Amino acid sequence: MKIGIIGSGALGLYYGAMLQKSGQDLHFLMRRDFDAVQRKGLQVDSVNGNFHLPKVACYRNSKDIGPVDLVIVGLKTFSNQHLKDLVRPLLGTRTAILTLQNGLGNEELLAAAFGRERILGGVAFLCTNRGEPGTVQHLGEGRIHLGEFSGGLSARSRMLAEIFQAAGVPCEAVSDLRRARWEKLVWNIPFNGLSALMKKDVTDLLDHLPSKELIRMLMLEVISGANAQVLEQPIDAKKFSDQLIAFTENMDHYRPSMMIDRLEGRPLELDAIYRIPIEQARTAGTDMARVEMLYSLLSAGEEN
Amino acid sequence: MKIGIIGSGALGLYYGAMLQKSGQDLHFLMRRDFDAVQRKGLQVDSVNGNFHLPKVACYRNSKDIGPVDLVIVGLKTFSNQHLKDLVRPLLGTRTAILTLQNGLGNEELLAAAFGRERILGGVAFLCTNRGEPGTVQHLGEGRIHLGEFSGGLSARSRMLAEIFQAAGVPCEAVSDLRRARWEKLVWNIPFNGLSALMKKDVTDLLDHLPSKELIRMLMLEVISGANAQVLEQPIDAKKFSDQLIAFTENMDHYRPSMMIDRLEGRPLELDAIYRIPIEQARTAGTDMARVEMLYSLLSAGEEN
Repeated sequence: MKIGIIGSGALGLYYGAMLQKSGQDLHFLMRRDFDAVQRKGLQVDSVNGNFHLPKVACYRNSKDIGPVDLVIVGLKTFSNQHLKDLVRPLLGTRTAILTLQNGLGNEELLAAAFGRERILGGVAFLCTNRGEPGTVQHLGEGRIHLGEFSGGLSARSRMLAEIFQAAGVPCEAVSDLRRARWEKLVWNIPFNGLSALMKKDVTDLLDHLPSKELIRMLMLEVISGANAQVLEQPIDAKKFSDQLIAFTENMDHYRPSMMIDRLEGRPLELDAIYRIPIEQARTAGTDMARVEMLYSLLSAGEEN
Repeated sequence: MKIGIIGSGALGLYYGAMLQKSGQDLHFLMRRDFDAVQRKGLQVDSVNGNFHLPKVACYRNSKDIGPVDLVIVGLKTFSNQHLKDLVRPLLGTRTAILTLQNGLGNEELLAAAFGRERILGGVAFLCTNRGEPGTVQHLGEGRIHLGEFSGGLSARSRMLAEIFQAAGVPCEAVSDLRRARWEKLVWNIPFNGLSALMKKDVTDLLDHLPSKELIRMLMLEVISGANAQVLEQPIDAKKFSDQLIAFTENMDHYRPSMMIDRLEGRPLELDAIYRIPIEQARTAGTDMARVEMLYSLLSAGEEN
């Protein structure tokens, strides 16, 4: 299967490398890592075993990739204003587009440009950091939940899940993509935001009792925002928040992507992870007061 | 009148200097500024005109001051564990104690140690910064509302107000000290906390629309916490928050004391300004969700 990766950050590089290693035909749109990967290939340092891909098809311009069977989008959402133009040259008549980006609004953007029947979304639970150019560090996890933007469990989404599984990536096709997206927000909203605001990793946050309580309260707000949407099955607030906190307590001083973005002076993914979820919750009649406050504080920090 | 100042920070130095200039007999317990003031007196750089006191009675130990008619407490509340021992040597049989400290809990502490009949509290609206040792900078304002801890409008509180007025300090005796304390918290809770957390002065905070909205929401929460107490007269939420915001818009890039404490690595006055008010509001049946969140975030920062 010919697959194009739009957005070769840590996520795009990691999943692309896993897929290429399993025999798929990968093509990466690359910026920061282009020279290094051209010269010496792509190195993946993974908790599951390191590997090296000596030859990687990488491009500076998506026009040079041409039509593919599947586009995987890993672009940071703060660059979404470029997304349509980056994806368009990869589309043939039957090309599917799978966005693994954070937060809400990405499928809608792609659907408006290219038709909703092309669009799938996936939620990635992945701990990666970029290393030096040409290297990606996989610190743990990697599971993907993917589904059709239009809902329902399609043959296509089952097939994509199998392709990821065959590449060693735990992957599940889900019928309710929106629920999966909100589930991910229950983690992203507290941990990404607080880590960026306080410049503390997840372990330091959880070790401070008032911060841990705040994380739980933020989670409960997001779950109430989620359950105010029309989901196939509501999220069990107590059980799911307990699970996520326990899960995160096993991450050893992990620095969420938004913390790294802030530390390195990049913009934050505030629209996808805060603004749009807050709007959707409010439209459904739920105020997420603490989430809104966190969004205000994060946006104030963007002014520096 | 023999007056002892316990806690010669910017506030203690400024009011003490004004009182001494008006002819009162002042005695300052001093730490940081002791050497400089011994050597060259005390310099006040004020928006109302600079002045210099060549001779100032300053002490390293409050035992050397001995009994006074009035103790004025300007100690930072994070040093309250020392307060009783610092004040005790200044007490004669009729000595009154006026605490001008921030937040809640200070009168209670003094009353438990020395009897409630001695205790008055005052709320100072004062923009000062410490300059180099021996200098205090008065940037604006200075008004005091003072009253009896036990409530009611006493002859003593009226007399103290007149003494301040005679020294050029706008001062009003109020019958409901608790209301005055909460009014001050309506300013302190948003501006002290957000400036310390975001390291932004009041002008920068108000210039960022989401922060300004957050300030207003924090104010409304504090006012609902205040009005849940038994006050002689409830605070008008809309009018008072509008007033305070307009008042603060006239401060040119003022840095609240808590922001300076954080920047200079000192502890923050979190008990007096956040913990105790949150507890009192909760006891009265009001949750201040955003205030609690701000308190959590500030306390997390104390761990650095």
